[in-house]
Amino acid sequence: MLQNDLLLRAAKGLSVERAPVWLMRQAGRILPEYRATRAKAKNFVEFVKNPELASEVTIQPVDILGVDAAIIFSDILVIPEAMGLPYEMIEAKGPRFPSTIQTKADIDKLKIADAGDLDYVMKALALTKKELNGRVPLIGFCGAPWTLFAYMIEGSGSKTFSKAKQFLYTHPDLSHQLLEKITQSSINYLKGQVAAGADLLQIFDSWAGVLSEKMYYEFSLKYISKICDALSPLAPVTVFAKDAHYAVKNISQTSCNSIGLDWTIDPLKARQEAGSKTLQGNADPCLLYADEKTILAETHSMLKAFGKDRYICNLGHGLYPDIDKEKVKFFVDVVKEYKW
Amino acid sequence: MLQNDLLLRAAKGLSVERAPVWLMRQAGRILPEYRATRAKAKNFVEFVKNPELASEVTIQPVDILGVDAAIIFSDILVIPEAMGLPYEMIEAKGPRFPSTIQTKADIDKLKIADAGDLDYVMKALALTKKELNGRVPLIGFCGAPWTLFAYMIEGSGSKTFSKAKQFLYTHPDLSHQLLEKITQSSINYLKGQVAAGADLLQIFDSWAGVLSEKMYYEFSLKYISKICDALSPLAPVTVFAKDAHYAVKNISQTSCNSIGLDWTIDPLKARQEAGSKTLQGNADPCLLYADEKTILAETHSMLKAFGKDRYICNLGHGLYPDIDKEKVKFFVDVVKEYKW
Repeated sequence: MLQNDLLLRAAKGLSVERAPVWLMRQAGRILPEYRATRAKAKNFVEFVKNPELASEVTIQPVDILGVDAAIIFSDILVIPEAMGLPYEMIEAKGPRFPSTIQTKADIDKLKIADAGDLDYVMKALALTKKELNGRVPLIGFCGAPWTLFAYMIEGSGSKTFSKAKQFLYTHPDLSHQLLEKITQSSINYLKGQVAAGADLLQIFDSWAGVLSEKMYYEFSLKYISKICDALSPLAPVTVFAKDAHYAVKNISQTSCNSIGLDWTIDPLKARQEAGSKTLQGNADPCLLYADEKTILAETHSMLKAFGKDRYICNLGHGLYPDIDKEKVKFFVDVVKEYKW
Repeated sequence: MLQNDLLLRAAKGLSVERAPVWLMRQAGRILPEYRATRAKAKNFVEFVKNPELASEVTIQPVDILGVDAAIIFSDILVIPEAMGLPYEMIEAKGPRFPSTIQTKADIDKLKIADAGDLDYVMKALALTKKELNGRVPLIGFCGAPWTLFAYMIEGSGSKTFSKAKQFLYTHPDLSHQLLEKITQSSINYLKGQVAAGADLLQIFDSWAGVLSEKMYYEFSLKYISKICDALSPLAPVTVFAKDAHYAVKNISQTSCNSIGLDWTIDPLKARQEAGSKTLQGNADPCLLYADEKTILAETHSMLKAFGKDRYICNLGHGLYPDIDKEKVKFFVDVVKEYKW
């Protein structure tokens, strides 16, 4: 059915003619076309909830940048909202939760979300799948339970997430209860995404890096592992734990298919630690501020280090909004034209 | 002369009866006594520039917490200011530079600071040294050239420091010119600090972690290494590169005496990579939110992992302002009472 299944073959460890390439935040502000569509919605949360608009921006980078996959436009915070904890997105600041989780009663009040609670995402996936018409695979995603927990306790982004970590240290049992509820919600959500057309799933653990190794395994990877076990029989799963440099080996011991790496991780070291798992990443987004000669040299060097198979080319983090779209296109072309 | 020279012996790799302990940001908002002294100054920058007040808060944690070292109260941004780029400290937000560095002309205009430009720090050190009267060693410090560069280009704190990194990628030659000027200023500054009474020096590379390994060596460690070469003949030097998990081995190849570690680094792995250098760290600051039983168990486990010699006990980052002073005192006591 798929005309370009490079991503799926790479994720499954099958041989490919060349490494597939897509970029985190490719459906985003680097594209003038995205900004035009975004302007049609009243605010970010409404934008995310509009299947037609979400589908439109999901497909834009496939047409404009020529990437090998689409990733559904949404936000990781739709899960807390579906559980009963709504969020706002403050322009140029980031997310904010008007109410946060502080007590057992707060946790008990949360519902375990199911796919029906996120019908707008399912509609966006189905619509996108139809519009893509088999051109490239469609990626679904969710936030890792720890990352969602961090926002739900802290109430916003934070350099340290010290309130969320304080909760782990002072209420470990309640923490596990909340993490379990988020995990069950995420499993329901991702199963719904696969049913609605997602070909591959990515779990974003954006705030992995604020935890020590021991805390990471206890409060984050344990729950990611449950999600992998529930979903990897249905679709390949990528785990991206930003800044959790110590965890590559342990992530590779889950039932995930591929491991996302940020740009502080050495590709060769990651290969040693990741066993037979596929690796994804890991260019520094700021590389795309450089001139074409530098982008070419650094990208070639990265491709050589990872090798052709069991590799999905990407950045080590999302695109920054002020990166020039032409540089992004150049990066994608360099990867696609590389002679293996 | 010193009644308690544990810190200096540990830094030099000499045997000690027990590991010394101090805490980053021990002279800070966790102490009501600090907040009372702070209230006497009009704003943060004036506070830093007042030798009597700076000396007062430097000594407070020695009296109140019983730590094995004092660290002079100051800010890493005094160097940009002395070079001609003044900063402000915005309450609850952090530093801001009204002007930033964007062009060659901006860099050319900066002066290379000398110790005389930072006379208020020298006075604070001399005053503190006199007041301490040999009780514990006095630590001096500076920011790493890359971290100061990052603020001078970006103009404030940032999650990504994408403007500063863009400058590295697009103007590597100018970047090296600016880093060299900061390095020379820092060497002059630290030499002055030793002359004024500092017994040990720490270089804080707070934003090391936003750089890839390759960029880190080229744009940060190269300059840290120059500072170590100039200063380590005069006083032991500690390098603390936060989040630069990949760099422990390469830092150990500079002429520094000890290496600061954040809480994401495994002590045993760091021992393997750091050769004979002393290690400093690395408790998660959020551990001090936990109950005493947890603090005791985790601290004992850390002490065992690092071992008695070539080890300086500390956190893996500065104390957070809302940490209970009694918990900090408890942590210090646990370290001091540990039976080696």
